[in-house]
Parts: sequence; C-alpha cells; structure tokens
Amino acid sequence: MRTLTVDLGDRSYPIYIGTELLRADLIAPHIAGRQVLIVTNDTIAALYLERVQAMLAGFETASVVLPDGERHKTLETASRVYDVLLERRFDRQSTLVALGGGVVGDLTGFVAATYQRGVHFIQIPTTLLAQVDSSVGGKTGVNHPLGKNMIGAFHQPRCVLADMDTLTTLPERELKAGLAEVIKYGLIMDPEFLAWLETSMPALLARDPEALAQAVERSCRDKAAVVGRDEREAGDRALLNLGHTFGHAIETETGYQSWLHGEAVAAGMHMAAHMSRELGWLTEADLARVRALLAAAELPLQPPAIAPDRFRELMAVDKKALGGRLRLVLLRALGEAVVTGDFDDTALARTLAHFAGA
Amino acid sequence: MRTLTVDLGDRSYPIYIGTELLRADLIAPHIAGRQVLIVTNDTIAALYLERVQAMLAGFETASVVLPDGERHKTLETASRVYDVLLERRFDRQSTLVALGGGVVGDLTGFVAATYQRGVHFIQIPTTLLAQVDSSVGGKTGVNHPLGKNMIGAFHQPRCVLADMDTLTTLPERELKAGLAEVIKYGLIMDPEFLAWLETSMPALLARDPEALAQAVERSCRDKAAVVGRDEREAGDRALLNLGHTFGHAIETETGYQSWLHGEAVAAGMHMAAHMSRELGWLTEADLARVRALLAAAELPLQPPAIAPDRFRELMAVDKKALGGRLRLVLLRALGEAVVTGDFDDTALARTLAHFAGA
Repeated sequence: MRTLTVDLGDRSYPIYIGTELLRADLIAPHIAGRQVLIVTNDTIAALYLERVQAMLAGFETASVVLPDGERHKTLETASRVYDVLLERRFDRQSTLVALGGGVVGDLTGFVAATYQRGVHFIQIPTTLLAQVDSSVGGKTGVNHPLGKNMIGAFHQPRCVLADMDTLTTLPERELKAGLAEVIKYGLIMDPEFLAWLETSMPALLARDPEALAQAVERSCRDKAAVVGRDEREAGDRALLNLGHTFGHAIETETGYQSWLHGEAVAAGMHMAAHMSRELGWLTEADLARVRALLAAAELPLQPPAIAPDRFRELMAVDKKALGGRLRLVLLRALGEAVVTGDFDDTALARTLAHFAGA
Repeated sequence: MRTLTVDLGDRSYPIYIGTELLRADLIAPHIAGRQVLIVTNDTIAALYLERVQAMLAGFETASVVLPDGERHKTLETASRVYDVLLERRFDRQSTLVALGGGVVGDLTGFVAATYQRGVHFIQIPTTLLAQVDSSVGGKTGVNHPLGKNMIGAFHQPRCVLADMDTLTTLPERELKAGLAEVIKYGLIMDPEFLAWLETSMPALLARDPEALAQAVERSCRDKAAVVGRDEREAGDRALLNLGHTFGHAIETETGYQSWLHGEAVAAGMHMAAHMSRELGWLTEADLARVRALLAAAELPLQPPAIAPDRFRELMAVDKKALGGRLRLVLLRALGEAVVTGDFDDTALARTLAHFAGA
C-alpha cells in the first residue's frame, strides 16, 4: 500500500493507494462520531456495498443508494440524502462515506459540506477518474440544467481509499476515460510521467494493479502540488482544467449523456493542443505525440460536429470565463501548461473551424 | 457612522453602523467584479429596492424578489436564485447583496457560499435581529422540514451596512423580537451592557437611532469576540445559543409560523434562566431581573403549552444534541453563560413541567 499525504495544514489527509484496502483499521481513525452514512449508486451497491457495510460494522450505519449517472447529480438528488440524514437524526458529528465514482463523490461531498454546515467526509472512489480527479482538491458540487458543477463548495475529505481491486469491475470505456485525466497530468506539468505513460499504456489498459497504483499516485501527487499552491483556484489551479473548457462545451451540447467526462476531456485536450500548435507553441511533432498517446489509450480525438459560433457560446458559460473574457488552458510545451485570456483569437477560430469540419 | 471591523485574518470585514448608509462610496470597494445580484423580499423591495439599485447604478445589476417569510427559507427558494444567476450568466466574480432580514440574509449567504463554489456577499440587514444576529459569524443556510438551518455553510460577508434608517419601517413586533437577541448578549457575557439595557429600553423601543446604533454595535462587538475565539462552533460559540434550544423546540412545534424567532428565543432564555435557578446557579432576584428586562422589551415570557416529553423530543433534533446527549446553554450568573451536557436532569424536568403548566 502507498500512502500519499495531501498537505493542507490542519485539514491534511491521507490517500491510501493499493489493493485490499476495504479494512476497518484503515478507515476507523478518520470517522468522527458513531453515525456513518454510506452514499452509493445502484451499480456499485450491488458490487461493494455489503463489503463496506461489513467494514463499518462497529458503527451506526445507514446507506442511500442513488440512481447511477451524471444526470442525477442534482440538487434534487442531494435533497434525498439530506432527507435520510434528518430522518435518521444524524448529528453534526456524523461521517458521510462516498462509495462510487465522481458523481457520487461530488454529490456526497457537497452534502457533507452543507449538512449542518459541514460534517466529516470519506471517499472510496471506485473509478479511475474519481481516484485521480476527486481524491485531491476538495471540490464538491452538483450540476444545474444551465451548467456543470455550478452549485458547490470546497470541502476536504478526512481520507481517501483508492483501492485498485475496485477497478477490476470498471467498464472498459470508463477505464479509458479515467486515463484521459491521468494523461492530463503528464501534459500540463510532468514530462517524465508523460514518457512513462507512453511506455506503460498497455499495462494500464490490461489493469495491471501495480501500474495503475503508480499512475494514481503520480497523478494525485501532481494534483496535490498544484492544489497546495492554490487551494481556492485563483490562479495555478486552473491548469488542471486543460481540455475542460472545450470538454464542458461538448458535454453541455450533448446533454451529459453520450460522452463520458474523460472522453470529452480527451477530445478537449486534443483541441487545446491543436490550438497551441496554431499559436506556434507546440510543434507538429508535439501534437502528433499528444494524438498518439490519446489514441493508445483508445480515447476519442474528435469532438462532435459543432459550429464555431455555437462552440464559443457553450464555452462562454464555463466558469473559467472571467468577467466575460474567455480564459483557456493551453500548452507552452509538452509538460508545461499556461492559463491565459490573452491569446490570438484567430488561432481559436482556426481550431474551432478545423474541428467543426470546415 | 460607527465602523466595527470583524477580525478574521484575510477574511476580515467591516460593519458600518449608523444612518444614511445606502451610499455608493461605502459599498463599491467591497464588490468583486461588475455583476451584482440584489436578493430581497416583496415587503422590503417595496420600501428600499429602488434606493439600493440607485446606489449600485455603476454596476450590471439584477434583482430577485422572494416571497416574505421563514417558510420560504428553503432549498427550493435558493434554487430560484441559482436559476437567475445562471440565466443572467453571472460569473464567479459576481457579488450577491442580501437586502432584508435574517431569512433573506441566510438564504442569500448560502447561495453565495455555493454558487460556483463561492462568490462575494454583502449584507444590508433591514431588521434589528438581522443587524445583531446575522452581521457576525458567517452562518448561512436554509431550513429543512425536519429542522431549522440544517442545510448551510460558513461564508463571511465582504461588508455589512447596518442602517438605522431601515429600522423606521420595521413592524413593532419585529423590533421587539430583535431586542431579544440584544438582551442575549447582556445575559451571556456582558453585565455592563445588561445594566445599560435596563435603563435604555424606553429609548430603544422609541427607536432612538443613537440608542439603536449603540445596541447594535455592542451586540456585534460581543458576538465578534466569541466568534473570533471559535469560528467553526466547536466550543465557546455555542454560548450564543442561549435560549435557542428551547426556542427552536417552540418554533418547530408551532411550524415556524405564529412565533417570531426572537420571541421564541425570549421565552427560551426565560426557560434557561428558570432552569439555572433550579440548578441553584441564579438567585430568585436574578431570575426576576431577567423577567423584568424581557417584559420591559414587551417580549413573551411563556412558551406555548407543550408536554415535557414532547418538548424533550423537539429539543433532541437540535444541532446542539451532540452524539445523542443534549447540551444546553445555561447561566452560571447574570452575564456569564456556560454550555454543558452535564446537568442535573431533574432541574430540566422541573423547568419543563413548570412551563407546561403542570
């Protein structure tokens, strides 16, 4: 087992990474009082709920099983969790355990952030995406019909159990979507990791637990370094959004249904790399390396056909549009991203036209 | 104008207290970007919305007028505010201005805490209760059918404009309810203020702006001293809940309709003082002084008739019930409150029986 400590002063917490982690001795020290609510979805409940309940046998537990899917990441679903907490008289010393992917983690974290103005929160992410994306950063939230994650809060977990065993049941497509976020860390800040990924992709796709644990640890370590510098996302943290402004536009246009988040980010990173090449920051060879790595992870490179004007409109509602001016994460080089609102707009125009098939 | 600075490190903010405060020069330095959403209710909108809009003429403003009343302090009402923010494309540099009483302030603060994971927030409290209770502490939230303020967050305002002019339109009953919270500060920690209140009550009831400003400033100063020691309410801050556990039981039983919050707190403080006398902490003369001051403010002394078992049940859901054990704020002496779960239960039984009319 690897242990990575996310250093946030008195809110520091450990991420445990490895196999056979669903053990009482790991989780118990991080639980506040006696009351524990497990929040999960119907897919994951069938696979792991019993095991997690057994692990928490020493506590007063209850569980809420939500319908699976991003479209249920709403204030209405969060309300169901508040209802259970209050019906069961959970007090402010309660602990919420999120067992599932990013939707369960974000929603449960938001409820934990806002139930009685904040209770303890533990994550057991069961997707690769959630293990690398939700384990670090403290972002919680739900979607609004007019935008993703528009309602939320910052709330740090007390610990994260990233168990590679839970990835054995992960659908192939979701594994690949998770690899998109892993690749992101290589692209934005870690050229050495990028090179490792280029050679390790077959082992990762074969779900070798050691390779996966290494990828999760390195991704979380990279993310923690960025978040540690910038906990509230005023500056550097926006680097983590490489591919996300383009990606969110894809997800919004397609109604969060047909594209997985990681798939949209993959196509979005490709678009950001393309635009960086248009700006003269990446070489043609750099862009080819990005394409090859995404292709090796069997991720989509092309967004759906969206007219440039519509694409800009979809990007404008994104949170990174600051005071009306669009800001993008672009690549100065492979392994070095920048956040900027000061770019040549014709480069964006060429990239949007290229991907719209014009 | 008096200015009281609430000292919270990099989240410190000023409370401006006085008359003629609805001026652009006071508020403008505390606004983040260009977009300002004014949230108010239909009663206050008719009186002050136009003036506040004029004050904010230099910004891109919008307003939401909510129905007046505690029963609208819900997640559904908060949703209406999120809808407007997103429909108007308010970005994360937006500022929310709460113009109204505690309901508007708590709800608007909660939306500000959670819109895009936190935006700027300014309070213009138009009731005495909100001026002394919501100006300091950063508590925001909405009610749930099973309990008050069960969904919420801590979120500090950027500034507070406590304008005594807005109290001229306050209904008599609400003025008195606000005085209950003012009296609370005297009782829990400030014997000198308690004595001042005993002589100044006629001026306060006559709405003398200088007396009111003095009462607001002293109350906010006392509250800030407690909150500064204990921002997240682990310990001392619970002192501020004198009368509130009893009071919340009254409000829950009566459906938040017939009793104003301050009225319930007044009766609750009387009950807490009575129980403190039962414990031998207050003398008969002390209890008489509490009664006389509440009576001078024309506040209710008696709760509605509620059987002791039912009263205990209503108190148990209160947030101060920690790990199942009821904790109460009681008076060691006039001007000195304590929070304790370690009290003689028969004293509580005698107090509940006394007020149930047994």
